[in-house]
Parts: sequence; C-alpha cells; structure tokens
Amino acid sequence: MKYIQLSVLLFAVIMASCTEKQSQEIVIASPDNSIEIKFNLSEKGEPIYLVNYKNKEVIKSSTLGFNLKELPSLKEDFKIINSATSSFNETWQMPWGEQLDVVNNYNELKIELQETSELKRKLNIIFRVFNDGIGFRYEFPEQENLKEVFITDENTQFNLTGDHQVWWTPGDWDIYEHLFNTTKFSKIDALSKANHPNLGQTYIPLNAVNTPVTMKTASGLHVSFHEAALVDYADMTLKVDTTNFTMTSGLVGSANNDYKVVRTVPFETPWRTIQIAEKAGDLIESKLIVNLNEPNKLGDVSSWVKPTKYTGIWWEMHLGKSSWDMASGKHGATTKNAKAFIDFSAKNNIGAVLVEGWNTGWEHWIGFEDREGVFDFVTPYTDYDLKEVVRYGKEKGVEIIMHHETSAATQTYEKQQDTAYALMQSLGIHAVKTGYVGKILPKGEYHHGQYMVNQYNNAVIKAAKYKVAINAHEPIKDTGLRRTYPNTISREGLRGQEFNAWATDGGNPAEHLPIVAFTRMLAGPIDYTPGIFDIKFDKWKAENQVNTTIAQQLALYVVIYSPIQMAADLIEKYEGNPAFEFIKDVGVDWQQTKVLNGEVGDFVTIARKERTSENWFVGGITDENAREMELNFNFLSPNTIYQAFIYEDGKDADWDKNPTAINIREIEISNQSIIKMQLAPGGGFAISLKPKK
Amino acid sequence: MKYIQLSVLLFAVIMASCTEKQSQEIVIASPDNSIEIKFNLSEKGEPIYLVNYKNKEVIKSSTLGFNLKELPSLKEDFKIINSATSSFNETWQMPWGEQLDVVNNYNELKIELQETSELKRKLNIIFRVFNDGIGFRYEFPEQENLKEVFITDENTQFNLTGDHQVWWTPGDWDIYEHLFNTTKFSKIDALSKANHPNLGQTYIPLNAVNTPVTMKTASGLHVSFHEAALVDYADMTLKVDTTNFTMTSGLVGSANNDYKVVRTVPFETPWRTIQIAEKAGDLIESKLIVNLNEPNKLGDVSSWVKPTKYTGIWWEMHLGKSSWDMASGKHGATTKNAKAFIDFSAKNNIGAVLVEGWNTGWEHWIGFEDREGVFDFVTPYTDYDLKEVVRYGKEKGVEIIMHHETSAATQTYEKQQDTAYALMQSLGIHAVKTGYVGKILPKGEYHHGQYMVNQYNNAVIKAAKYKVAINAHEPIKDTGLRRTYPNTISREGLRGQEFNAWATDGGNPAEHLPIVAFTRMLAGPIDYTPGIFDIKFDKWKAENQVNTTIAQQLALYVVIYSPIQMAADLIEKYEGNPAFEFIKDVGVDWQQTKVLNGEVGDFVTIARKERTSENWFVGGITDENAREMELNFNFLSPNTIYQAFIYEDGKDADWDKNPTAINIREIEISNQSIIKMQLAPGGGFAISLKPKK
Repeated sequence: MKYIQLSVLLFAVIMASCTEKQSQEIVIASPDNSIEIKFNLSEKGEPIYLVNYKNKEVIKSSTLGFNLKELPSLKEDFKIINSATSSFNETWQMPWGEQLDVVNNYNELKIELQETSELKRKLNIIFRVFNDGIGFRYEFPEQENLKEVFITDENTQFNLTGDHQVWWTPGDWDIYEHLFNTTKFSKIDALSKANHPNLGQTYIPLNAVNTPVTMKTASGLHVSFHEAALVDYADMTLKVDTTNFTMTSGLVGSANNDYKVVRTVPFETPWRTIQIAEKAGDLIESKLIVNLNEPNKLGDVSSWVKPTKYTGIWWEMHLGKSSWDMASGKHGATTKNAKAFIDFSAKNNIGAVLVEGWNTGWEHWIGFEDREGVFDFVTPYTDYDLKEVVRYGKEKGVEIIMHHETSAATQTYEKQQDTAYALMQSLGIHAVKTGYVGKILPKGEYHHGQYMVNQYNNAVIKAAKYKVAINAHEPIKDTGLRRTYPNTISREGLRGQEFNAWATDGGNPAEHLPIVAFTRMLAGPIDYTPGIFDIKFDKWKAENQVNTTIAQQLALYVVIYSPIQMAADLIEKYEGNPAFEFIKDVGVDWQQTKVLNGEVGDFVTIARKERTSENWFVGGITDENAREMELNFNFLSPNTIYQAFIYEDGKDADWDKNPTAINIREIEISNQSIIKMQLAPGGGFAISLKPKK
Repeated sequence: MKYIQLSVLLFAVIMASCTEKQSQEIVIASPDNSIEIKFNLSEKGEPIYLVNYKNKEVIKSSTLGFNLKELPSLKEDFKIINSATSSFNETWQMPWGEQLDVVNNYNELKIELQETSELKRKLNIIFRVFNDGIGFRYEFPEQENLKEVFITDENTQFNLTGDHQVWWTPGDWDIYEHLFNTTKFSKIDALSKANHPNLGQTYIPLNAVNTPVTMKTASGLHVSFHEAALVDYADMTLKVDTTNFTMTSGLVGSANNDYKVVRTVPFETPWRTIQIAEKAGDLIESKLIVNLNEPNKLGDVSSWVKPTKYTGIWWEMHLGKSSWDMASGKHGATTKNAKAFIDFSAKNNIGAVLVEGWNTGWEHWIGFEDREGVFDFVTPYTDYDLKEVVRYGKEKGVEIIMHHETSAATQTYEKQQDTAYALMQSLGIHAVKTGYVGKILPKGEYHHGQYMVNQYNNAVIKAAKYKVAINAHEPIKDTGLRRTYPNTISREGLRGQEFNAWATDGGNPAEHLPIVAFTRMLAGPIDYTPGIFDIKFDKWKAENQVNTTIAQQLALYVVIYSPIQMAADLIEKYEGNPAFEFIKDVGVDWQQTKVLNGEVGDFVTIARKERTSENWFVGGITDENAREMELNFNFLSPNTIYQAFIYEDGKDADWDKNPTAINIREIEISNQSIIKMQLAPGGGFAISLKPKK
C-alpha cells in the first residue's frame, strides 16, 4: 500500500427541506462526477436508489430490502436516521496481478435507516461510487430487536432503462459451466438451459442469470453486474423480469428450504456492483471488484505464492489417452509420466507440473452417491511415488501442483484438510488444484449456497496456514477475495478448455472467449488451461476439436488473465513447434495492463507488461469472423526500439478448416508504430516485445 | 557394410597391336560408362592419361611423374609391364554422416610401369572410375633400386579443355582461411592474395590454388579437383599455368628445403580426385572422397562419437565480450559461465558445451615466438573448476567439449597428448577441439606439409585410443579420412563465422557459403559455427556484422554438413526468439541427403532426413541476390502428410538493411507439394517436416 488518503470531502448533498416520508434525496457522485447515485425513501419508506452516468439514467429507481424468516420483511417504513459521506483515495499494490499499482478512489455514502414501526430495526446501506462503477452493500448493525437473521430473500432491484443486449449464463445454483448467450434482455430464458447433458451437476430453478452479467445499452454504454467480497452469504443470481426490464437479487438456496442465508447481527452483505464503461475494454481494466475487498490479511506471501506456468497430467485424461483411476489400466499419474512432464517443464521455462489422479479413490467417483470417505488426499496409487516425484521436481527446479478432487464430499474434505495441507507443507508443495465435481454432500446444499461459500473460503484460510495456495475448480465465483487472501490464485467457474475435448454440443464456440473476457473475467483470474496445439486431436477424438486457431491459443496467455497459466496440451505436441516459444516466453505476472480494443462477443486485444522485465506481450482474439485491426503501440516506452515477434494466423487459417496455420515474424516496433493485424475466423495473434539491447 | 561384390568384369580394354613405345592405349570406363580414362605412354615413355565425360574430353592428355632428390626423375622411359582391371561394388554404412548407406562402385585399372633405363625403377598407377568422377594414385612398389624416396616435386598434370570459370582460394601452405575467388582460369592470381592482414600465418609461394577447387566448363559441366586419403604425404596444391590452362600438382614444402615428402618404399600417394557432374548439386551428393579412403579401422565408435549440437564459450571472445586469458580481467571460461551454458544447453536439446580458454597459458599465445612449453592441457585457470563443470554437465546430460589450443607448438602438444587425452577419458570427455594458430614450430614447417599431415593424423589415431574425437581448427584439409577414423568428426579449414566478428575486409560476403557448399564442403564436414541471431552485434562491434539474414543462419544447419553443429551466438540472444526452435529441432545425423537445386556461388538447397526419426529438414541459401525458387517435395515418403514449419526471410529482409526479419509459418506438405520460396539478398530458409500423427 503506497499511501492512504481518507478524508471527508465537501459534497453536494442535497437534503431537500421536506417533511419526513417525503423526498429527502441524497446524491453522491464519483470522484470524476461521471457517475452519481441518488438515494431516497419511497412514500412507503422503502429504500430506493438510482444510478446516472453523465446525467443519464443507467439504473432507474430501484428498491432495496429483505424478506426474513419468521419476521416481518425488512424493506419499508424506514426513516433515515443518519447519512455520512466520505472520500477515499489510496494506491495499493497487488502481490501478483494484472497490474502492480491499483488506485482505489471512491466517494462513500453511508445511510443509516431505522424502521418507524414497532420493531425499530436498523439497516444501513453503504454506497461507494468509483469512476468505473459503483458498489453497495447492506450492513445489519448491532441492535436490540435483531440478533440473528434468516434471509429468505434479498430484494435488491436493478431496474434497467431498456431492453439491453445481454451476455448471460443461466442462474445455475450448482455450476457456472454454461455457454454465454447473447440476447436482448427481454429474451433471456434461463430455464431453457436446464439439463445440459455435459454438466456434472446443474440446477436452474428460476429465470435468473449468474454474474458477472454484462449488457450494452442502446446508446452504447456497457454495464456489468456482479458482487464483491462474497463471504458467509449465498451467491447472488439475478432474477429477470423480461417485461419490466428489471433484475432482482435471487440468492442461492440451501438444504434448509426455508431460508438462504443465516447470519448473526452485526454483519455485512457482499457488495452489489455495477461496472459502467463507454468502451467495453474499460470493463476489463476496471479494478472495482478487488477494490471493494478488504486488504491483504496474509502479509507477504511472495515466498510461496508464485505466479507460474505449468504443464500437467490432465488433458490426456480428457482426450481418453489415460485415466485418473488405476483400474482402467491406463493410469496417467505414474511416476514415470510425472517425471517426463517435469523434464519438459524444466527445459521450457515452466515452473510447475499438475498431477491429477495421483491418489486412490478414483474408481469410486462420478456416479456414486456415497462419496464421503473415499478420497483421503494422502494415499498415492502404487504406481505413483509422490515423494520421489516431488524430489525429482525440486532437483529440476519444477514444483508439483497438488490435486484434491473432493467429489463434492465436503465433510470428508473438511476433516482431511489439515492432514492434506500439512503433507503438502512437509513436501514443500505450495499450490493445490481442488475439484468439486458432482452433487454437493450433504444433500440439499448447492455449490453456490452459503454453506459452500464458507467451504471454499474456509479452505483458502486454512490452506494459508500451511502456505498453500488454491486453484478451485467447480468453485464459487470469484468476487475479488484474492485481495484479502492472495493465496486464492485462480479458479475455474466457466466452461473451460476441457469441454472442447468431449462436449456433445460442439465444444466452446469461437465467440466463447471474446464474451468471457468481458463477463467471467471481470470477476477475477481464470484457469482456462490454454495452449492446445493439436487442435483437431483426431487420434483421440475425431468428433471433437478446439474451435480456435493455434494463434488464438497463444493469444489466450495474454488475453485471459491468471497468475497460473497451463500449457495444457500433451507435451509431445509442443516439440518442434516454433509457436511454443511464445508460451515459454510469455509473462505470468504483470506490471501494467492495457486493453487496446474490444467489443463484447466479437474481439478483444490486451497488452500486458511483465513485472520482472521491460517486456510487453500483446494478445488479440476474434470470434468466428475474420477481422482486420490496427494496433497502435503508443503505450510503449518512448525512445525505445522493441524487437517484436508476432505470432499470427497463417494464410488461409480458419478455426475449422485450417486451425494450425500460423505465421511468426520478427519486426521492430516503437511507440510510434501502428501495424495492421489480420485475424482469421476463430483466430488471433500474440506478440512479444523486448527492448533491443 | 551391407555387402561386397568384388569381381573381375569383362572390359573393353583396347590394347592396340602396336610396337612398344608406341600407342598402347588402355581405356577404363565408369560403371555407367559415362566417364572414361585413357591411359597411355608418350613417345618418351611418359605416363599420360586423359579423361572423357560422355565422349567429350574433360582432362586432355596429361603427364604423370615425380622429381626426386639426388635421383633421376621418375617420369619417363617407362614401359607397361602389367595392367589389370577389376570392378568393385559395395554398400557400406557411415557410422555418422550425410547418409547411412554409401554405394562404392567403381572400375579399377592398375598399371604397372617399369623404367626401360638402367635403374629399372617401378611405379604403379591405380585409376578408379566411379559414376561421379575418378581417383588415381601412385604406388611405389617394393623394388631393388628404390628404397627411400625424397620427393622434390610431384608432376601430376591436369590439362584443362578451356578457360573455365573457377572458384578458387590461393594455394597457401599454412592456412585455408581465404575467401573464394570467382574468375576465369586464365585470371587466377594467387600471389595477389598474399599477406592478408587477418590471417595468423599465411604463405603463398606460387600461383597455385588449394583444393577442393571447382570449375564450370563452357558447356556447363562441373569439375572439382581434390585428393583423398592424405596420409604421410604433403598437401597437394595445384600450380596454375594460366596460358595453357594446365594445373600441375605442387606439394607443400617442409623445413628441409630440398624435398617435400620423404617415404620408405613401398608406399602409396594420396588419391588425386576429379569429381564430374552436370548439375552442381551432384558434386555435393558425391561420396567419391570417402569411398577412396580405407574402411573404418576403429570398429564401433557409437558409444563415444556422437553427433551433437553444442554451444560454447567462444563467440563472446570474438566479439570482445570476454577473453581467453585471465589477465585481461574478463576471462570467459569461468565455472559460472560454463554452468550457464550447460543449463541453456540442457534445456534446448543441445548435447554439449565447448569451453575455450579454460587452461593456463593464454597470456603467452599469439605474438610470441617461444610458444613451446606454454600450454599443458591439464591445468585450469583458478576461476574454472574443470571437474565440477564436467560433473555438473553430466548431471544435466550435457557433455563438455575439451579445447586444446596448441598455438602450433607441435612438440609440446605431441608430448602432452597422452596426458591430455587420458585426463579427458578419466573425466568422460569424448571430444576435443584442437587449434593450431600461428607459425608452426619447429620453424620451417608448414601447416600443410608432410610433417603436419602426420601431426594431425597421429593425433586422431592417438585420441582414438582414449575414445576421444577431434575437431581440428587450423587443420590440414579433409580428404575423407573420417571413413577410416570416424573420430575425425569435423574441422575448420575455411574462413569461418569468426571472421564476421572482426575481419577488416568486411567479413564473409553473402556469396561465401554458396561457394563453400560446392568447394570446401566436398572435402568433408565443416565446423562453421552457424546460428548467429544478433546479426549486427552493434553493442560489441559496430563496424562488423554477419552478412546473411537470420533465416540463412538457420538454413546453414542443413546446408553445411557437420556431425557437430554449434549454436554459436551468445545464449541470451536465443531467448524469446521462435526461430531458435529450428536449432533445437534440427537433426545432426542423416539417413539421406538430397540436393534440390544449386549453382556454385549463387544458391543451393539441400534436404536431409534424420536417422533417428522420419523427419526431414531442408535448408536453402542465396548469395547477395534475392531469389525466388520452386521446391518440389517429391523426395518425401508417399501417402504421408508432413507438418512443415517454414522459417524464411521476412518482408523486406536483407542481409544488410534488415537481417533479422524472419517469417515462420506452418503448412502441410506431401510428396505432391510444390511450393515457392522467396529468398532475400543474403537470405535463405529452413524447413522442418514431420509426419503428422
């Protein structure tokens, strides 16, 4: 943290001199005055807010409040008992991330409400207005008549100004691994996405969407809805009213059918966030989500949380070349195979190897109801010498990434965590990929409910004690907690690369990642596992393929942010391919990030500067449409000539007809340079730029 | 050796029924009848021969014979006492080489001569006629009146048919490191090349050329002159008679000014060779030189003579970044630096590291007269831990290449060889680069005289006892002895890459290697040390540069044959450059070689198939002229799709203005493919081809 400025500024707070229960609008604006929130109470004493951007409404007057179990709703008959504004401006540093310095500059309005009715319950609402969006949360302050709350519904409204274009996934309570849909708001139909055959566990009870959900208004403004600091609470889906263009928070339920969140007062909800940008790319540059999280609670983690590239025994299972379990007769996680990956990684500037399927129990995994007590996270298969593999890796300078597939048997995992993390610490292993495939045990809980939110968060907190970082798959969505717990290194939480290996719906279409960059990626790092060079892999799955060119696979190392980036293909597929030099070369930890262009679902180009060098890397991707774009390198340091290697789609490249055609060329680039790039259908490009010495 | 067929064939031997001393022409033809040699005696009883190619003269009637010290010349008054013809056809296998199987098929004529004069000395001449050229040698058989010969001149004539185009270097007795000259035969002027400022030791006494010397006749035939199996004899230069278009063997002299070769009878001279080809590229495919050498005398050397790529502490000295000697304060051969090269090599499929300047003595090297006793080849500088470097290399799977700079102090080296090679054997080092910079000690000897021929050959034979292979610099020229002693892995013997670092004449021009491929390379492997990526190296030497594009540097790994190929640049220059993948990938030991096109001094393209895989590699280079060429891949296996990576000159590439512009693209190629390549001035291309799986 470089410096903190906390001061109370003078505000244009308009307190209209009206009688109580009448208009007493309170306005708070962003530091640059582009965004303003107006808070008021309705005639019924309901808290209401609206959001303007440059004096035009973005969110129309919308209500706030809760339904509680066995108690009257907490949503009306309020009076304002106090309001306070303050301003905050700090620059803090990410221990790892898209950039080193993050400006956290907002104006805050804290409204203290109290019921005028008999119970006189209190509810506070805190708004923070940034130049790139807003966040607000509810605070349940300590009070006489409210000690424990059972929230049955949170009724936070987002009243939209029109029938926006929306990039959405259904509000599944169990999994985020849906394709994004591009429709008008009025056409959102989440229920039509139920029962996807390729999902291990899915539950879509309502016409709702998951967040981040991004929209584009008729006037071209980009708005994205999400939440920050999801702690001890249920995931917020957004229920859709396609007629009135209104969304209302829909919390994910729990095994207790009669409430969704239980908390002891005092407590705060997560932040409800709206990122607002004229250019789509500004959504990606926004640091609003992490800014709304608390500062680092772990101190200096640099000795054990290390951004890295990794390879792993993983894609081969998805192709069917090998298997997680040993009974299959083609067990992937053998000592020999792991050493081959270590050797390859050591040679290619890749710091780690993930080994899946190393521990006993995989014979009793998917398809079994009684999964508690199966995996123990310490017992290797007989053909895998864990200690020897770790020792060999250390000798070669390559770390092993542990793998804990919980099979969603949460009680077994919770009980075993200390043992499992202690084993890791004793071996000097500092990262684990966790998995939560299947229906949550105990029955009735959902991956995204309060119970599981706590499971995921507690695992991170416990792991930190053992200097272990977590990359969760089938996770709860990212809400920026990596700021508070920087051992939260990455996660899945989207349709990843593996769907290309076996999905019966054709895999991830070319538009998938040009949407993901403006939606899922606003939440945080993505373990997408790029770098498949054998695009068609006909030897293994003639019916499936990756739906991008090889150049786009390279671009993903820059476009898709994660401090851990897999080189996911079978290692032999990289041999002899000069395109692999980009994977070897590309950074994983960034000083700066610039989004050079982009339209949601169409294309995006991102430039990132490495922390440990003066090198820049640029990645650009397009959807199914070929595209020509001009790149302006005015972001480079002045008076410097960069040696640039451009990895681009080859002649006649095409994600389907000719996906491996790549062209690599070397040119000199300065901050005066403007170059034209040609992107093939499903294509992309990657550029490395190094100052010439 | 697959099979041997040795039989006496029926020959059209025309023995004209003339009286003695009159025409008794003996004709022998190549197996395909394209080449014939006619032998006869002149009226004076001189042995004379001529060579036809497809019934046209290539060598006009030329005399053979010797001048001897204190004895009458051995060149006339001969009669034929016997003549015998035989035919030979075998296929033998190279332990390493440009190809695995070598067909050795020739017809032989052995003429036994005896003087009609009082001494009745005997001299035999053996001709071998191959489909790709001829070789002949003199045999001094056991006889009464000739026990020891002191040859003052060998008078082997090559009487040319016209004023051919010639690619020649001067007949220097001390060094081959001259640029090739392209002139008409009548314009050869070797003496004008004397006193080149950048040569450590040079002596050009006559208007003669060194071999291989290649010519093109007015009718387009290519003819190249050289020798094979140069053992215990002086190097043959070719004295030039620019008026009569005649060349005569000019042996290199010795400290004994009155003779050039001393031998005890019986003995044989080296083979005098003429390679004949309609297409220039056929000269490169010819295996005539090795075929004229004796079979392998070392048995299976595969456990210690291993084709490999290597890096080394070498180019940095030529750039002036570091120094061989320690007194300079910038000693290159430190333990730390050697380990950095080992690490880099281990990561990049490079099997060995050369370390020059590791041993004491370099403070007393060039410029000192008294160089005997300076180097001892076992004492490292204090900052270089030889054993630790070797141990570290072994741990990483990288061999160290030993370096013995003799500074031409031959007696010191000869005495120390057992000690030095035994040290290598004890450490498990199997290769040494030797150097012979400076004026030969003892004084009066020349690098190319009989004394030194024996020095070089004896070193190879002695080294073999310790399982050591030799790569000699400032060597005697290659005459195919690698067949007999396959620990003769490579050598210099031309203007190498290092001239580009400091030569005051502008370095090696773009035409240099397109000439070398058809001249010096016909002799045998060349340790040219390609792979300079930092073409201009302005940081070190603003006045110098490599005069090729980076794509040509890649092409050289295929075009220039050597079983050891250096990746010569500073290792940091390879980092992040996708073009380096070709160097990592390219083979070093070949199953087959095909020359796809070429004109001497203009361009050449060679395809080679790796022994250990089904991969092919193609390299093409051009001189200072840009060039478009069509490549036909009909040499590839049928019904196979190859994934091809093409490394070619980038847009606007130029050896001078834009040498690093490279373009790399991936396409599919089959044996039906014909593709167009664009070569920049001083440019080239390299292609790797792998069967798709």
